[in-house]
Amino acid sequence: MTALWVIVLCGALSILYAIWATSSVLKSDAGNPRMQEIAAAVAEGAQAYLKRQYMTIAMVGVVIFALLAYFLGMLVAIGFLVGAVLSGAAGFIGMNVSVRANVRTAQAATTSLAGGLELAFKAGAITGLLVAGLALLGVTIYFAYLTQIMGLKANDRVVVDALVALGFGASLISIFARLGGGIFTKGADVGGDLVGKVEAGIPEDDPRNPATIADNVGDNVGDCAGMAADLFETYAVTAVATMVLAAIFFANSPLLVNMMTLPLAIGGVCIITSIIGTFFVKLGASQSIMGALYKGLIATGVLSLLGVAAVIHWLIGFGPLEGVKFTGMALFWCGVVGLAVTGLIIWITEYYTGTDYRPVKSIASSSVTGHGTNVIQGLAISMEATAMPAIVIIAGILITYSLAGLFGIAIATATMLALAGMIVALDAFGPVTDNAGGIAEMAGLPKEVRKSTDALDAVGNTTKAVTKGYAIGSAGLGALVLFAAYNEDLKFFIANAAKFPYFQGVLPDFSLNNPYVVVGLLFGGLLPYLFGAMGMTAVGRAAGAIVEEVRRQFREKPGIMQGTDKPDYGKAVDLLTKAAIKEMIIPSLLPVLSPIFVYFAIYAIAGGGAAGKSAAFSAVGAMLLGVIVTGLFVAISMTSGGGAWDNAKKYIEDGHYGGKGSDAHKAAVTGDTVGDPYKDTAGPAVNPMIKITNIVALLLLAILAH
Amino acid sequence: MTALWVIVLCGALSILYAIWATSSVLKSDAGNPRMQEIAAAVAEGAQAYLKRQYMTIAMVGVVIFALLAYFLGMLVAIGFLVGAVLSGAAGFIGMNVSVRANVRTAQAATTSLAGGLELAFKAGAITGLLVAGLALLGVTIYFAYLTQIMGLKANDRVVVDALVALGFGASLISIFARLGGGIFTKGADVGGDLVGKVEAGIPEDDPRNPATIADNVGDNVGDCAGMAADLFETYAVTAVATMVLAAIFFANSPLLVNMMTLPLAIGGVCIITSIIGTFFVKLGASQSIMGALYKGLIATGVLSLLGVAAVIHWLIGFGPLEGVKFTGMALFWCGVVGLAVTGLIIWITEYYTGTDYRPVKSIASSSVTGHGTNVIQGLAISMEATAMPAIVIIAGILITYSLAGLFGIAIATATMLALAGMIVALDAFGPVTDNAGGIAEMAGLPKEVRKSTDALDAVGNTTKAVTKGYAIGSAGLGALVLFAAYNEDLKFFIANAAKFPYFQGVLPDFSLNNPYVVVGLLFGGLLPYLFGAMGMTAVGRAAGAIVEEVRRQFREKPGIMQGTDKPDYGKAVDLLTKAAIKEMIIPSLLPVLSPIFVYFAIYAIAGGGAAGKSAAFSAVGAMLLGVIVTGLFVAISMTSGGGAWDNAKKYIEDGHYGGKGSDAHKAAVTGDTVGDPYKDTAGPAVNPMIKITNIVALLLLAILAH
Repeated sequence: MTALWVIVLCGALSILYAIWATSSVLKSDAGNPRMQEIAAAVAEGAQAYLKRQYMTIAMVGVVIFALLAYFLGMLVAIGFLVGAVLSGAAGFIGMNVSVRANVRTAQAATTSLAGGLELAFKAGAITGLLVAGLALLGVTIYFAYLTQIMGLKANDRVVVDALVALGFGASLISIFARLGGGIFTKGADVGGDLVGKVEAGIPEDDPRNPATIADNVGDNVGDCAGMAADLFETYAVTAVATMVLAAIFFANSPLLVNMMTLPLAIGGVCIITSIIGTFFVKLGASQSIMGALYKGLIATGVLSLLGVAAVIHWLIGFGPLEGVKFTGMALFWCGVVGLAVTGLIIWITEYYTGTDYRPVKSIASSSVTGHGTNVIQGLAISMEATAMPAIVIIAGILITYSLAGLFGIAIATATMLALAGMIVALDAFGPVTDNAGGIAEMAGLPKEVRKSTDALDAVGNTTKAVTKGYAIGSAGLGALVLFAAYNEDLKFFIANAAKFPYFQGVLPDFSLNNPYVVVGLLFGGLLPYLFGAMGMTAVGRAAGAIVEEVRRQFREKPGIMQGTDKPDYGKAVDLLTKAAIKEMIIPSLLPVLSPIFVYFAIYAIAGGGAAGKSAAFSAVGAMLLGVIVTGLFVAISMTSGGGAWDNAKKYIEDGHYGGKGSDAHKAAVTGDTVGDPYKDTAGPAVNPMIKITNIVALLLLAILAH
Repeated sequence: MTALWVIVLCGALSILYAIWATSSVLKSDAGNPRMQEIAAAVAEGAQAYLKRQYMTIAMVGVVIFALLAYFLGMLVAIGFLVGAVLSGAAGFIGMNVSVRANVRTAQAATTSLAGGLELAFKAGAITGLLVAGLALLGVTIYFAYLTQIMGLKANDRVVVDALVALGFGASLISIFARLGGGIFTKGADVGGDLVGKVEAGIPEDDPRNPATIADNVGDNVGDCAGMAADLFETYAVTAVATMVLAAIFFANSPLLVNMMTLPLAIGGVCIITSIIGTFFVKLGASQSIMGALYKGLIATGVLSLLGVAAVIHWLIGFGPLEGVKFTGMALFWCGVVGLAVTGLIIWITEYYTGTDYRPVKSIASSSVTGHGTNVIQGLAISMEATAMPAIVIIAGILITYSLAGLFGIAIATATMLALAGMIVALDAFGPVTDNAGGIAEMAGLPKEVRKSTDALDAVGNTTKAVTKGYAIGSAGLGALVLFAAYNEDLKFFIANAAKFPYFQGVLPDFSLNNPYVVVGLLFGGLLPYLFGAMGMTAVGRAAGAIVEEVRRQFREKPGIMQGTDKPDYGKAVDLLTKAAIKEMIIPSLLPVLSPIFVYFAIYAIAGGGAAGKSAAFSAVGAMLLGVIVTGLFVAISMTSGGGAWDNAKKYIEDGHYGGKGSDAHKAAVTGDTVGDPYKDTAGPAVNPMIKITNIVALLLLAILAH
């Protein structure tokens, strides 16, 4: 049991790091009063949005808490609460640091690029380590509480259900935050660009544009808080699913507790390696920002290899393991595969979204012949970009399965996600620099400052795309682990049907010959499409509302354009807040309710009774895989395609094909606009959507068992 | 055995209809010499393309013929030849009528809309009935030859393999024709529009545009010949798959031959109802073209209900059937479900692509805020458009399976496809009217003529979208039947492993718990994405080449724009022919080679031997379903989305949101351009791609068994 407390210590380290880094960020110069005024407006808007979002989620959450308490007991419901609150906290704290770091980054960039990078990255690292640390602490402490203080057996159903509920809490925050934040940020971005850049002919982040504060708010609530919730969820859910698998596979083994502890221990050691890694991020002589970030990532990766080896040696040893056919060494190799998959997906995503390679260049060159060809080529690239990641994931499954069966896939995924602290750090520095650029522009700082923040921002675009690729790749693998958990859980209930009478006579048939399985696959397959459609439409609607609002302000206060009158920034923020909250609810409920709907619909169609249950469990299981199969492709194509469009525009702005203002540039702006909701709203939200469907199915099992 | 000859008679009727209708078309006035000159250029280009395409396919075909003859014997190889030749013939004859009917339709439209409609529809009906008739004749006569003249048992392996090979022949033509034709037509369309409408500012079909003949050629080789090959394949493959299932399910039943004949008989009777239906297509007092077409379709549908009932009564009766748990009546209801699915999919597709409903209007209204929002909304609609068809297909599977098991699904699909004659007729009239409009424009006919042909053309857009929805819906169901055939075939070989020693010890596990199944699903899932990406890129490249060529001609012959010099139309046609042929090869081979690659890769990875074979067969089976799951969504989203974009442009051109020339119109043109390769190249080609993957897997089984 020492192990659990050592892991808690690792988690606590991340909090300490966050406290230290926060105080170090806050100590920096916050710039002149104009800058502070702008930053305050952004912070205020972001806090107002987040407050409203959390209140809305709280209303849904209270209902779910009550349902869980009623059906599965208080301990399970509290697990749900822990997951939701900690996920919310990670996003909330991270964002609050972010809205303070933005202006300080802008100020630091007035003196040097290195200074700006250091500040922005430190702010990102706070979010990153809080995401990993709080998720790890939540799962570990609640697990320790249940098993140590409550004295429950590690694989007691209450423990398993409570952990799954913890994951569900995180998932619920995640889907709302990803979608709501995504709609907000892209509604502001698309709407603001359309009415500002295109109609009024003023540059991005021009203070005369009433949507400009909203745009900066969006960066924080979408790219920072939303992304943090997403990764928190992926981290927590994967850890939980791996623990559930361990609880089932090693139920009668003396290794039970250590196996359930293993994913947490891997998480713990990787927090230490991530913290060490942050100190490797230093701008070298080459002034390559990406190079500086990669130094940190590579340091973390290499150290993690050693760390994972140490953890496995300590907890289970490298030799043969009792009761299973694989060795500790095999599990170590699975961890290595997890790290390799991470590296490959990062590399592939960079290939598809970086300005140095064929895909982005091909979109840029097709912009010369117009808007239409730009979009056609962008769509082609977005579809093509799915192939290599899918093959990497396929290879990962084949190798880890042959090494250590389903548990091997789980350990690989857990190791992959253990790096989340570092990866989120790379991502969360993006909105800070994006905001810093906005503040520099609005406050009228000298051009060189904007140049520094733009350089940081361009790298932020790539790291954002890379993080999404990582999140979705790990979500794909994580969802397979969840499906395995569903399947093993179901087997467990059936085997113990004497204790769980609902499962008497149930014989699920997950074979592809079973039409209910085919139906489940198709139904699951349609969810990401419908969900994506809803997300895209919501952004279109929100952007349209912003266009109307800005036009109204320009019309009613002609002084705004002359600079003699101030636009009403708050109105746009408020409007988007309402729109995003309203639009996020129905699509978010789609994956929550679908497993329940499919279960009872198929149960009824198949004639009820044990046969109906068997059919329904089969269809729900297939639905989980169906969601993964299309979801993976929808999500990767959207996030990579969107990133490629964005950077094709940047590539042209760097002076290719006529540069800024050319016809090719106009076409590239169209592509970028299309890519916005692709990469920042619908695409990344598919990720929590996949997992929430799976985790609701797991909870459904638990509820039916009661 | 009378039944088979009666079916042949029905097939022969379709040929008679085609001969009668052709002579009636050819007797019409072919217009003035200028019109005839243009039509001749189009016909020449189309024939040149088709010749080259068939020659290229022939080279691939000869290799496959030899392989089949070597591995499975001459009778099987001849089956392949029959499928390929008849599919080619249907496209070739249909297209040759089409390129003659176009100019006559233009001429007829000079006097009345009704006259134009009658001629164009008659030309379409020739293609439609030849597709259904030749497919039916091919399968029926070869089946009769093998069983009657060669004296083989109806479910002899040679018969089964020969029928599957016949389907493969049709598939091979289909994928090349769909893709090659699609690249040609959209390369010409996109490229011609970009350089003509956008750059040079001349209207569509302006004779000064060197790409204009190529555009009209494209309509014929893509929308006529390509589509005919696609539907021929779907028809033949579904009939064959249903027969294979019957051969397995009723192997020891006296009903064997009648059950194998049933799908053919349904096809036969529906040819008669389709012919009758064509005479219902008459412009009523309301002058509604769509109404006239629907009259024909509804007449065919209602009569087919009676016809299917009669056929079932005659062949197997409505009562209980020996050896199975369902009745003849249940099979009749499955047929009804097939017709209902057809009706619903047509209705849903019209909803998503028609100018009267929310989806198209929402795209049009989002064009007001620019190119970007048009594309965003179009993509949202394209994704949303998949949900309802998927649910209809799911419902169809659930109902027919509960009525009569897997064979029920097969009969529903066979009935759905039996209407192909009529549906293709509705579709194939589109390219004729599209060409007629082009000829009217180029020959400088009065404006009213163009108005008539435009009215016909607009309806053609909707019927094209509707046919694609039908083709993909039926392909989705047909592919499930093929998967069932794969699965049953595999079971058969394993059960008879004494005779087929390759299958000794093979134990495929199609359960979703099997990681090889998950891997297969993911690999299958990536194929439509990769294939779609290749198709889109190919169109972009071909269009780019056309832009270069037209620019060159304008540059080198400045007289073209002044009307003093003639453009070199042949050069553009020739260039596209080469580009389309070159670009179609690799993507077409992707689905052909994938099952073979996956089988041997997984066999090796899983360690060879019986275990390796089991893993490999499981992965290949899952791959077949993976292709269907993502393919269905990719195909429906592309074809419906493309249709919606096209009609949103038309809706604006009808005077909404500022009409032609407005900014909204420009944005809508961008959307239409994006939709072009979506709906006419990549989307519809996914359809044969899905099936070819399945049918290659079936052949692989047969080859391994030898």
